[in-house]
Amino acid sequence: MSEIPFLKTPEQAAFRDHMETKVAHWLTQWDGVEAIQAGLIGLPLSKPSISHSGASTTPAAVRAAFKSFTTYSLEYGVDLQTLPVRDLGDIQMHPTDIRECHRRIQEGLQALYEQQPHLVPILIGGDHSTSCPSIQAFAARYPGKRIGILHFDAHHDVRNLEDGGPTNGTPFRGLLESGVVEGRHIVQIGIRGFMNSKAYHDYVKRHGVHIFTSRDVRRLGIDAVLDQALELAGDGTEALFVSFDVDVIDQAYAPGCPAVGTGGMNPWDALDALYRLGQLPQVQGIDFVEFDPTVDVRNLTTRMTVQFMLTFLAGLAERLRA
Amino acid sequence: MSEIPFLKTPEQAAFRDHMETKVAHWLTQWDGVEAIQAGLIGLPLSKPSISHSGASTTPAAVRAAFKSFTTYSLEYGVDLQTLPVRDLGDIQMHPTDIRECHRRIQEGLQALYEQQPHLVPILIGGDHSTSCPSIQAFAARYPGKRIGILHFDAHHDVRNLEDGGPTNGTPFRGLLESGVVEGRHIVQIGIRGFMNSKAYHDYVKRHGVHIFTSRDVRRLGIDAVLDQALELAGDGTEALFVSFDVDVIDQAYAPGCPAVGTGGMNPWDALDALYRLGQLPQVQGIDFVEFDPTVDVRNLTTRMTVQFMLTFLAGLAERLRA
Amino acid sequence: MSEIPFLKTPEQAAFRDHMETKVAHWLTQWDGVEAIQAGLIGLPLSKPSISHSGASTTPAAVRAAFKSFTTYSLEYGVDLQTLPVRDLGDIQMHPTDIRECHRRIQEGLQALYEQQPHLVPILIGGDHSTSCPSIQAFAARYPGKRIGILHFDAHHDVRNLEDGGPTNGTPFRGLLESGVVEGRHIVQIGIRGFMNSKAYHDYVKRHGVHIFTSRDVRRLGIDAVLDQALELAGDGTEALFVSFDVDVIDQAYAPGCPAVGTGGMNPWDALDALYRLGQLPQVQGIDFVEFDPTVDVRNLTTRMTVQFMLTFLAGLAERLRA
Amino acid sequence: MSEIPFLKTPEQAAFRDHMETKVAHWLTQWDGVEAIQAGLIGLPLSKPSISHSGASTTPAAVRAAFKSFTTYSLEYGVDLQTLPVRDLGDIQMHPTDIRECHRRIQEGLQALYEQQPHLVPILIGGDHSTSCPSIQAFAARYPGKRIGILHFDAHHDVRNLEDGGPTNGTPFRGLLESGVVEGRHIVQIGIRGFMNSKAYHDYVKRHGVHIFTSRDVRRLGIDAVLDQALELAGDGTEALFVSFDVDVIDQAYAPGCPAVGTGGMNPWDALDALYRLGQLPQVQGIDFVEFDPTVDVRNLTTRMTVQFMLTFLAGLAERLRA
Amino acid sequence: MSEIPFLKTPEQAAFRDHMETKVAHWLTQWDGVEAIQAGLIGLPLSKPSISHSGASTTPAAVRAAFKSFTTYSLEYGVDLQTLPVRDLGDIQMHPTDIRECHRRIQEGLQALYEQQPHLVPILIGGDHSTSCPSIQAFAARYPGKRIGILHFDAHHDVRNLEDGGPTNGTPFRGLLESGVVEGRHIVQIGIRGFMNSKAYHDYVKRHGVHIFTSRDVRRLGIDAVLDQALELAGDGTEALFVSFDVDVIDQAYAPGCPAVGTGGMNPWDALDALYRLGQLPQVQGIDFVEFDPTVDVRNLTTRMTVQFMLTFLAGLAERLRA
Amino acid sequence: MSEIPFLKTPEQAAFRDHMETKVAHWLTQWDGVEAIQAGLIGLPLSKPSISHSGASTTPAAVRAAFKSFTTYSLEYGVDLQTLPVRDLGDIQMHPTDIRECHRRIQEGLQALYEQQPHLVPILIGGDHSTSCPSIQAFAARYPGKRIGILHFDAHHDVRNLEDGGPTNGTPFRGLLESGVVEGRHIVQIGIRGFMNSKAYHDYVKRHGVHIFTSRDVRRLGIDAVLDQALELAGDGTEALFVSFDVDVIDQAYAPGCPAVGTGGMNPWDALDALYRLGQLPQVQGIDFVEFDPTVDVRNLTTRMTVQFMLTFLAGLAERLRA
Ligand SMILES: [Ca+2]
Ligand SMILES: [Ca+2]
Ligand SMILES: [Ca+2]
Ligand SMILES: [Ca+2]
Ligand SMILES: [Ca+2]
Ligand SMILES: [Ca+2]
Ligand SMILES: [Ca+2]
Ligand SMILES: [Ca+2]
Ligand SMILES: [Ca+2]
Ligand SMILES: [Ca+2]
Ligand SMILES: [Ca+2]
Ligand SMILES: [Ca+2]
Repeated sequence: MSEIPFLKTPEQAAFRDHMETKVAHWLTQWDGVEAIQAGLIGLPLSKPSISHSGASTTPAAVRAAFKSFTTYSLEYGVDLQTLPVRDLGDIQMHPTDIRECHRRIQEGLQALYEQQPHLVPILIGGDHSTSCPSIQAFAARYPGKRIGILHFDAHHDVRNLEDGGPTNGTPFRGLLESGVVEGRHIVQIGIRGFMNSKAYHDYVKRHGVHIFTSRDVRRLGIDAVLDQALELAGDGTEALFVSFDVDVIDQAYAPGCPAVGTGGMNPWDALDALYRLGQLPQVQGIDFVEFDPTVDVRNLTTRMTVQFMLTFLAGLAERLRA
Repeated sequence: MSEIPFLKTPEQAAFRDHMETKVAHWLTQWDGVEAIQAGLIGLPLSKPSISHSGASTTPAAVRAAFKSFTTYSLEYGVDLQTLPVRDLGDIQMHPTDIRECHRRIQEGLQALYEQQPHLVPILIGGDHSTSCPSIQAFAARYPGKRIGILHFDAHHDVRNLEDGGPTNGTPFRGLLESGVVEGRHIVQIGIRGFMNSKAYHDYVKRHGVHIFTSRDVRRLGIDAVLDQALELAGDGTEALFVSFDVDVIDQAYAPGCPAVGTGGMNPWDALDALYRLGQLPQVQGIDFVEFDPTVDVRNLTTRMTVQFMLTFLAGLAERLRA
Repeated sequence: MSEIPFLKTPEQAAFRDHMETKVAHWLTQWDGVEAIQAGLIGLPLSKPSISHSGASTTPAAVRAAFKSFTTYSLEYGVDLQTLPVRDLGDIQMHPTDIRECHRRIQEGLQALYEQQPHLVPILIGGDHSTSCPSIQAFAARYPGKRIGILHFDAHHDVRNLEDGGPTNGTPFRGLLESGVVEGRHIVQIGIRGFMNSKAYHDYVKRHGVHIFTSRDVRRLGIDAVLDQALELAGDGTEALFVSFDVDVIDQAYAPGCPAVGTGGMNPWDALDALYRLGQLPQVQGIDFVEFDPTVDVRNLTTRMTVQFMLTFLAGLAERLRA
Repeated sequence: MSEIPFLKTPEQAAFRDHMETKVAHWLTQWDGVEAIQAGLIGLPLSKPSISHSGASTTPAAVRAAFKSFTTYSLEYGVDLQTLPVRDLGDIQMHPTDIRECHRRIQEGLQALYEQQPHLVPILIGGDHSTSCPSIQAFAARYPGKRIGILHFDAHHDVRNLEDGGPTNGTPFRGLLESGVVEGRHIVQIGIRGFMNSKAYHDYVKRHGVHIFTSRDVRRLGIDAVLDQALELAGDGTEALFVSFDVDVIDQAYAPGCPAVGTGGMNPWDALDALYRLGQLPQVQGIDFVEFDPTVDVRNLTTRMTVQFMLTFLAGLAERLRA
Repeated sequence: MSEIPFLKTPEQAAFRDHMETKVAHWLTQWDGVEAIQAGLIGLPLSKPSISHSGASTTPAAVRAAFKSFTTYSLEYGVDLQTLPVRDLGDIQMHPTDIRECHRRIQEGLQALYEQQPHLVPILIGGDHSTSCPSIQAFAARYPGKRIGILHFDAHHDVRNLEDGGPTNGTPFRGLLESGVVEGRHIVQIGIRGFMNSKAYHDYVKRHGVHIFTSRDVRRLGIDAVLDQALELAGDGTEALFVSFDVDVIDQAYAPGCPAVGTGGMNPWDALDALYRLGQLPQVQGIDFVEFDPTVDVRNLTTRMTVQFMLTFLAGLAERLRA
Repeated sequence: MSEIPFLKTPEQAAFRDHMETKVAHWLTQWDGVEAIQAGLIGLPLSKPSISHSGASTTPAAVRAAFKSFTTYSLEYGVDLQTLPVRDLGDIQMHPTDIRECHRRIQEGLQALYEQQPHLVPILIGGDHSTSCPSIQAFAARYPGKRIGILHFDAHHDVRNLEDGGPTNGTPFRGLLESGVVEGRHIVQIGIRGFMNSKAYHDYVKRHGVHIFTSRDVRRLGIDAVLDQALELAGDGTEALFVSFDVDVIDQAYAPGCPAVGTGGMNPWDALDALYRLGQLPQVQGIDFVEFDPTVDVRNLTTRMTVQFMLTFLAGLAERLRA
């Protein structure tokens, strides 16, 4: 069609500054061959959510927002264009069988990790139920070793499984009870009052899980909290997984989460934390879960999450440069 | 990547019923070679609009809605899959030079029509200013002949050009004054009170343009109005172009138009009219213009316009079958 | 400031087509001297409303919409510019004393009518409670004579006054019980099921009020209903007042009414009715009440009401021309 | 607490007109003992929906709207207060096991029907997948007999079950394949083009299902369509079930449906049809499904559906009075 | 109905985790007999508001949000389940007589306080006009003694009463002029520029009211401000009342306030302050006023206020435990 | 009209507290004669914006918000009523010729500055493209001298001009390349990662522009950043212009900006900075640009900007008092 003047594919016809690379033009689909350091994988599933959630639309919303950001991390002097990251696509979900969906996540990721043993997965949920199978697949990368988890969340996520699980309220119950992870290797950051029951708070403490409330982060500072958290989760473990439930952020900054509430963390602390985590060699995987683009305001929560992801990748670029 | 179970491209991973074809899977990008009967061309331009308008986002919104409709016209027993229609892309607009944008539309379409002399263009605006250059290109297909226009609109669109044109208020002024079309070959359908000035109403009458108000359509019926309109516009012309300004539809059905108002046509009459126009061999081009997806409600106006376009194509399929 | 090039008042700086007059440029503030045929008066009051209502913002919303419509009634060949109509302003309401507000409406209008005995008032509510004092003032123009009322509404509006009145549910109770109007001179058009109680339906029938349901309008046609209504309300009365509660229109066309519901009248019938009523010499006043711009969708209800008002004025112009 | 002046329960403290009964005050919770003619049962399930749907919130939204409507059907002179109808509650759904949800619907309703053999169920979905188990339970009321179905819908709802069913796209496939209903006893009303595939259209025709498109309703009139439909569905059947998918209504009137589209039925025809169906002794059950209050505009779709339900009940009252 | 499997009341049918207590299940309606420490009382009144306000819907919105929070204050190790708090209902308002509404608030609360002399009232407005009668009732608990007030607000709320009061702009004028409270016992926290006039600022200073601006809170810290405020308000007073106008919080966190503005307090400081105030024995009552759920975004302001209230109650629990 | 009781112009009829002056009543239209210290000038232009923007509606939105704020700066003890500031109106834009619009801005302002050499202009955009011509006009006030710029923005705004400029992405490129300002006299504050390309970051550094990222502001404090910025921009310059792109503020506080993103500055720092800048004699002009009221949430961004402007004026009042 090139001979017709001015007639272009919609993508070509849109404005493009030739001196600027958008994330959309860099973080393209993987060809299955290229050696990559990190890969984006969508987990478009939210039917396990207890409350009504459209978090299954998050992977699509996140990708659509890639055209709004550049690859250049001005603060850290890193251009992500140098980092081989690709979009690996989505795990295909079953329309009505939720356990089958969880099985597909675990099986798909496990196969991927076998083929790409050094890939750092960037998982985009979906609701938090996806972290149970995805972390099981992650743990299987380290046979005979233990993994640690940094779990950013307003909630403990250890609901009992009898009342209808596995749901978005149960992933860490599932992981603890299956023995995939030990409580002492889990650090929960950002947990808040009036969003958890005493029974579950007692449960996690009984299992040795370490807890930093959102108020702790405000009072101690994110750096000090992270110092302790990394020491605790890293003690005796081979690798760390970061599970980032976006509702850990205060509702004013993350209005698109189903479980919005005040008193949460602010995004600046999260940016600092994620850059630091990106730099650490022991951090080998991350997920971002539990926000629903269909109820978001001005796309704010999606955009913030994209910036979180990019900042983690800036740290990763720094790590690889080091 | 096929060896990783369940990991698919986002498009593959989404639900798809193997016994159903969505428009999105049929109306794909043209390869520049295939023989086609009709082609979709986006005109993503709304900076000429007098009032604030995001109609430049319409081509993208229309394409995104293709996944919500099937190819099967149940009422008319036509499956569009049999009709060779493709998406030719968008005319690339200049970010700040509006006259250059109009020049590109005219030049691009003219080159296209030369290469594809029998193609029926389905133009997706953009504001109505795009019709002036696009109809000029259309008229150039018929050298030495006259063309007729069926213009569905609440407005006459013949504003003076001195007050700041060419705008979305001036396309038919531009066409009349350039001599591209004669007034007696234009039929305006759906014009409404309190949306036009007496001066412009007098102007179109002075030029011999034929007018059916929205109230005429209600009282005479769309079939009778179309009978007369086709006779008038077809008298002495070689081909007809349909310019469909979506604000001809009552605001309750088309809330996404910048110039919403009540007393307009209903969508059922428009569906009947467009099917009939699709069937007629003299109708050789159509555009849909003047709605703004960024202010639409529940995507209703975009979806309605897609159904209008598909219904016109059902008529076209019928025409070709005959 | 005229010597500074391009620097204008905001009003001057905005786009204006010199061949088109907007309602905003014609229906300007009255100077208190000019002889006028009709005058717009705002009644910005909705605290009497039983349900939460922002109808007090309607006069401002209606005026703001005047810039979106021209003065030319294309269907009826009338340019309102020939009609001396002005904006008389608003009745100033007390912030917290509702009975005082009603008193001000009655007293202010009565004084106005004394000064301008031939003025046709176009009252813009406010909630429907305003019609009780405003019609009392209207009736006082005809001492010793009876007036008739054409009341377009989904509701009878004759709630008992003991449960908390006077509210937007009681205006016709107030008028009937005060003896200002006789039931047999009231015709209610557009009343609907499931929006009124049997007790109140029985009450209006007991008082001889004539009722045409919305379903009657659909089945008999607006022309036939109006024929009967005018005969009934006009029998033995000196003048007619039209009280137009916008919720008589189906919710799809009037989403901004607090009491939205389906099964209502369509706007085309209302346009035809209002043009006809505008033409009739016995129609000497009108109000438009009960919609809330703060909950409207895309301003549809405000715009529709402006078109209703303009169409009534087109009839009035016709009347005066005759 | 009665001794504290003015302090009331929230329900008591709200405004209440003592001469008016709202549906909320009449259609109260069943005590399990009272003899009732009809009962409302909520089916708060939408996880089977292919597209993202919050139809599980519909029963709560419908109940919340009961305070906005009275019991008096003005057009038909029926006060529903005379009709013993109660709210039976909801079927409790499993959070993550969809087949279990369907089993509960079928088992719960079957047990109910055994206990209350003459109850007319008014089922409030949920998505359309609920109709498969609910109609299976309904059919079991008539052992050895056939039932007929009047199915109002834009869609055939006979998708194949292999691609991920049972979903909201498969209920009539499920019923046909299980032999619960014969195709010739099903009449589909309101089916539309570009919303179904040719394969499924052929499937229903092959099974002898009768089809009236939305366009047929516009051209033949709802009365004539219903005459034929009742004859067809009633031929050889013991009882009729009405399955009313709200997306049969045009999108302008039902913006809250996930599958909005234009060209649909209007609400006035639906009101007339439902009143007539309410009157017919053979109609022994009804459901209203497939709208999502979380994406509705101004609650319009919920309110319309409540009015549909009340109009059906007005017919039922008429039936029992006869 | 217990014998019908799976059929439950809507409340029972919804998901419930048996190891978690929601506020909705704990803070239930008072039976008029149980000994309680604190009681919630709704004041559904906003017609006194100068600007359009739906704050009358706040009590209902707050109650509806109780299902989204648990009783467990994780940060302070308090489970509210141990605290006897109940919902006492709403003061019934007159639909049109605002002074009567204020009289009912004062009279109702006074009667309540006589019957329950040790009850800590948690009043949920309504607009701020409700604080004048409610604090008058509160002061009457301490005959011959003085009370102090901690008033969190962006505004002084001492407008003159001649221009239309009593409104939401006048409560503290009313209290000062009636002599119920002395200026030196009032501390206003969070007052902001460009939201008050100099005349009123001078007025409060003349009356000896103590003022901490929002900027003071940012610079001095909430703890230091509270130290001083408690000393000032507590000096010579028997009890303290906290009047919390939610618009003291910055608009980004409290978008649901009619008078939104930037430069306000942040919610974390408010949480810390309210926990501390809950602990203090001299604090014997609190109200939360001036937000409008009908204009809120994603329910953020309602949810924040519920968390404020729960945090105050956590302090109260701590106080009683001490 | 004064003789009609209670009938007032809409402005008069609205509530007004006689002891309070709103900005709307103070900042009125300039008469062209009065000696003024500062003047508001609207630049209603956003067609140059690369992304869809309604920033052309900002001047009107800002003016409409003036009725929500008083003139009294409580924190700084300044009542703006003492400051002679007036509204000078808008630069009239051409509907379709963008370069002509820029020409009008430059020419109009230049003429104004010649007539009013000491006027501090408060320019209300419009998109950021307006700063190129407006700063050119500003620079012309100081012939033979240099000016400095404090540029608050998330973006460098130095895109190449070949890809379609001049746009909202190019103003500082335009200024640098035209030699109007030297790079070393520009300080950019609030620049953020992933919103700029490395090429443009390198470009500004190459030109000696000074950069403080948003993260620098958080870590160093706004006071320290401003200390350095003023020293740098003031070194060798005659006057300073402040160009304030509202998207420098974090998206949670400024949701109405087209280019929303997290990690931005907070409004409290901006308030402190603007008060300080208002006080400095060398600051002789300011603009506020790049937000779009048509996509704002609850008007938050408009209101915040008005408070920014008023706080700058409070500093200016202080400056003049000193
Ligand atoms: Ca979680
Ligand atoms: Ca969570
Ligand atoms: Ca047009
Ligand atoms: Ca038009
Ligand atoms: Ca009424
Ligand atoms: Ca009404
Ligand atoms: Ca269906
Ligand atoms: Ca359907
Ligand atoms: Ca207050
Ligand atoms: Ca306040
Ligand atoms: Ca900028
Ligand atoms: Ca910017």
